[in-house]
Amino acid sequence: MYIILEGVDTAGKSTQIELLRQKFTEAIFTKEPGGTPLGQKIKELVLQDTPSTLAEIFLFLADRAEHIQKLIKPNIHKRKRIFSDRGFISGIAYAHIKSALPIPKLQELNELAMQGIKPDGIVLLLLSPQELLRRISSKELDTIEQRGIEYLLEVQNIMKRLIEESSYPYLIVDASLPKQKILHDIVEFVKEIDEH
Amino acid sequence: MYIILEGVDTAGKSTQIELLRQKFTEAIFTKEPGGTPLGQKIKELVLQDTPSTLAEIFLFLADRAEHIQKLIKPNIHKRKRIFSDRGFISGIAYAHIKSALPIPKLQELNELAMQGIKPDGIVLLLLSPQELLRRISSKELDTIEQRGIEYLLEVQNIMKRLIEESSYPYLIVDASLPKQKILHDIVEFVKEIDEH
Repeated sequence: MYIILEGVDTAGKSTQIELLRQKFTEAIFTKEPGGTPLGQKIKELVLQDTPSTLAEIFLFLADRAEHIQKLIKPNIHKRKRIFSDRGFISGIAYAHIKSALPIPKLQELNELAMQGIKPDGIVLLLLSPQELLRRISSKELDTIEQRGIEYLLEVQNIMKRLIEESSYPYLIVDASLPKQKILHDIVEFVKEIDEH
Repeated sequence: MYIILEGVDTAGKSTQIELLRQKFTEAIFTKEPGGTPLGQKIKELVLQDTPSTLAEIFLFLADRAEHIQKLIKPNIHKRKRIFSDRGFISGIAYAHIKSALPIPKLQELNELAMQGIKPDGIVLLLLSPQELLRRISSKELDTIEQRGIEYLLEVQNIMKRLIEESSYPYLIVDASLPKQKILHDIVEFVKEIDEH
C-alpha cells in the first residue's frame, strides 16, 4: 500500500510522519525528492547548481522515476506499507508555478515517471491562509518559505485541485487541528484503504 | 547557426571537430551530454550511479534542456556559429533502444527540452558495417563499444532514419572517406546553409 503525504512547508508533514512511524513500525517511510541515493545527489544538484527551469523539472522527474523503480515498486511487490513524504502531486504543482507549463503536460510527464504505479491514497494537510501566515511568521525562513505566503497558497491550491480531480482515494485534513486528531484521521483513512 | 554532428563511436566525430575548430576559429564548439557545468555533473551521475532506465532518460533531457537554455540560445542570439558534438538525434536513438519507449514519445520529450530551438543543419558520419567492425576491432573497447557492433549499427540506423525523416537540412557523409574529404563536404554544407 502506497500512501503519499502532501502539504506545503509548515503544514506539519514531518510531525505526522514521525507519529506514523511510531504507529506503523513495519512500514517503509520515504520521500521525494531524495528518496534514493541517486535522488539525494539530484537534490544536491538542484540546490547547488541553479539549473534552468526545464532542466530542474527533468531532474525532479529523474528523481521520481528512480524512486518508483528502485524503492516503490519493489516494496509494493513485497506488500509493504509505504508512506512517502511528497510525490507527484507537489511535483506537478511546483513545476507548474515555476515553468508555466500546462498542468496536463506535467501530468503526462509524471505518468511516464510513475511507470504505471498509482498511489492507494493521498493525504493533504491543508492550512488556512491565516494559519499559514501565523506559522510562517513564527519560524525562521528557509529558501522556499522566503518566496512568500501567496506562493505557498498557490502551490496548496493547485495540490488540492489535483487531488480532488484525481481518481485516487484521498483525505484532506485541516492542518491546524491538534496533531493527535490529525494522526487519528490519517490512521482511519489508512484502515479504510486496508479494508478495500 | 547551430549545427549538430552525429555519429556512433569510432565514426570520427572528434577528428572532424578538431579540423572544424581550425577552420572556424570564431565558432563555439560544444557537446551533449556535458556541454554545461550542470551537464558535466549529470554525466558523472549517469556513469557512476547506474540510474534506472527512465531516470537516465530524464537526466539526459535535463542535460539537453540546460545546454539549450544556457549555451545554445545565448549563442544563437549573438549570431555565433555553433557546432555541437551530438544532440537530440543520438539522444532519441540511444533512449529508444535502451527503454523501448516509442520514438514519437521520445521526440515529444526532446521537443520540450529543445524549447523551440531547431538546428540549422545536421551532419551524420555514417559507417558501413564492415568499416565499423574494422574500427571496433582495432581499438580498445570502452563501455559503450563493448555493447557490440549490432548495437552500434542499430543506433546508427535509427539516427539515419530520424535525420532523413526530419525537416532539417542534413548531410550524411561516408565516414570511411579520407578525413580531409569529409571536412570539405562538411564545410560545403555549412556554406550552403550560410547562403540561405
